[in-house]
Amino acid sequence: MHPGNQPEGPLTPAVVFEMLQAHQRTAALKAAIDLDLFTAIGDGPGDVASIARHCKASERGVRILCDFLVINGVLVKESGCYLHSATSAAFLDPRSPASLASIAQFLANPAMRETYDNLAEVVRNGRTSLPGEGTVEPENPVWVQFAETMAPMMAPMAAPLGAVVLEGHNGPMHVLDIAAGHGLFGIEIAKQNPHARVTGLDWAPVLRVALDNARKAGVHERYNMLPGSAFDVDFGGPYDAVLLTNFLHHFDKPTCVGLLKKVRGALKPGGRVATLEFVPNEDRVSPPMPAAFALTMLTSTPAGDAYTLNDLSAMYADAGFTNTKSHPIPLSPHTVVTGHA
Amino acid sequence: MHPGNQPEGPLTPAVVFEMLQAHQRTAALKAAIDLDLFTAIGDGPGDVASIARHCKASERGVRILCDFLVINGVLVKESGCYLHSATSAAFLDPRSPASLASIAQFLANPAMRETYDNLAEVVRNGRTSLPGEGTVEPENPVWVQFAETMAPMMAPMAAPLGAVVLEGHNGPMHVLDIAAGHGLFGIEIAKQNPHARVTGLDWAPVLRVALDNARKAGVHERYNMLPGSAFDVDFGGPYDAVLLTNFLHHFDKPTCVGLLKKVRGALKPGGRVATLEFVPNEDRVSPPMPAAFALTMLTSTPAGDAYTLNDLSAMYADAGFTNTKSHPIPLSPHTVVTGHA
Repeated sequence: MHPGNQPEGPLTPAVVFEMLQAHQRTAALKAAIDLDLFTAIGDGPGDVASIARHCKASERGVRILCDFLVINGVLVKESGCYLHSATSAAFLDPRSPASLASIAQFLANPAMRETYDNLAEVVRNGRTSLPGEGTVEPENPVWVQFAETMAPMMAPMAAPLGAVVLEGHNGPMHVLDIAAGHGLFGIEIAKQNPHARVTGLDWAPVLRVALDNARKAGVHERYNMLPGSAFDVDFGGPYDAVLLTNFLHHFDKPTCVGLLKKVRGALKPGGRVATLEFVPNEDRVSPPMPAAFALTMLTSTPAGDAYTLNDLSAMYADAGFTNTKSHPIPLSPHTVVTGHA
Repeated sequence: MHPGNQPEGPLTPAVVFEMLQAHQRTAALKAAIDLDLFTAIGDGPGDVASIARHCKASERGVRILCDFLVINGVLVKESGCYLHSATSAAFLDPRSPASLASIAQFLANPAMRETYDNLAEVVRNGRTSLPGEGTVEPENPVWVQFAETMAPMMAPMAAPLGAVVLEGHNGPMHVLDIAAGHGLFGIEIAKQNPHARVTGLDWAPVLRVALDNARKAGVHERYNMLPGSAFDVDFGGPYDAVLLTNFLHHFDKPTCVGLLKKVRGALKPGGRVATLEFVPNEDRVSPPMPAAFALTMLTSTPAGDAYTLNDLSAMYADAGFTNTKSHPIPLSPHTVVTGHA
């Protein structure tokens, strides 16, 4: 995937040029989504003039943007017309059920992107250049945007996570979903087990998004809301399971251990915690996507990280959990790590 | 190189995630250069603490940045220490004669990069969002930066271009180098042919950089300066050859034809013009680097483009040139196109 990783052939500076211009690729995909270009492509016939009309954009701009998307494997060009690739049809056409178009609003959020303009400064200081505590600042509205836009990225992880947590259990149970966000993970538990009750914990404005999703899934009568900070509110309980999805990576290890102890205190004996995380290998440089996620934590938090399985196992052990197990989710960069109270 | 181009295997949204986060790769390389990280890597021993000391940066930041550069094939990691890859040793260590570190200042220039934050707007309007005429605004200081920083990227093209233009000619001749910039191309002619005189044309502050380089190359006594705009100044002449490097792509076709006519008028009968350009195939989507260059022209100029060989041949013909020939430069994305007056 990266030219620098290919030892064959003569030494060229291709990787340097490619990286220095890689930002264009983010901008191109974001602009195409913002211009509703993928709807135009889906509608056909795919000539520059038709696309430009649909997008209310110039023909020069549309032609160059579409060519750029073809070069990058997003679209296909045939006889001068632009067509969906399998990828853009499935993941970028807004009418596709698997469309990920909304995640661009979070992943290419201007405030988050701007932290990369200051990356040398961030590396010097070792922490986000965002105000306060960055994305973990209390009530940061970025989490409402996350809840509203990132569900399509997380949806494929919900069923496998639910299966790992439930292990076929079909009786009455109470599950706490910490940092519920869009709520999809807790909702999935309620869908897979009609006797499960779920409590979603997050900032109040975020929980409104989760409750909306619970309503759409028809499980809102078994969905309770616990608004506030995971570090401050009383969890209640005791619970049969606690979900801690996409959360630990925002904090340093002692903070994670403290939170895991609080989680353990809210679990029934034998109850389980399940985290969903980007878990790189111990070398911290593979696989690419989970390993690279550490940079996002550097730019957006004071002390977060992409934790390896050894890191997570040590935190679990320090918090008193036993029987720590890793469940990589196939075809995804995510891993569920479970432990028993 | 791009996941979307790989038809094998299950359909995954990898290309979407990768593109939405590609901007991180530009920022990481730029930050590493700004922090002088590649000097630290070259010095060894490559542990986080030593690198952090050299870069006056935090250990958390250095570790995460270095891991990110390993993931992207720029550095190598062994036993927890970071080492040069063949690529970073050759092209990123400031002490390497082939170091490209300075080009980051131009390619990741903040004003140019910011145009990508407005890319949807640029596509709508079909022209740069930079003030005035963008990079082709008269006396735009960005060309001083280009001249000062981009020579290492262009240096490998100078010898092949010189050979194409001279064709072994070793007698007295006069060459005009339009938009001379760093001056390397004209200087190369003077180096290859000790009887050649060269006139560099560019904005006056840019020509100071070219003259400096001519002095370093020991050819300044045969190097004259013609300050001003290629569209406005009298070229003088007649010349045996005119170089028109990295210039036509900034303008629309009629403007290019007008300029080529003016060039032809300044050439001796049988004299030749030589352009250096990114020349994509007629499909305009391959090879990747020349084809993608059109996006840079969209964001930085009112009407520039990456012209195909058919485009350039037609412009040459319209301007009265004959015997148009394409000379791709091996292992580079550049092509020299020559024509006879």
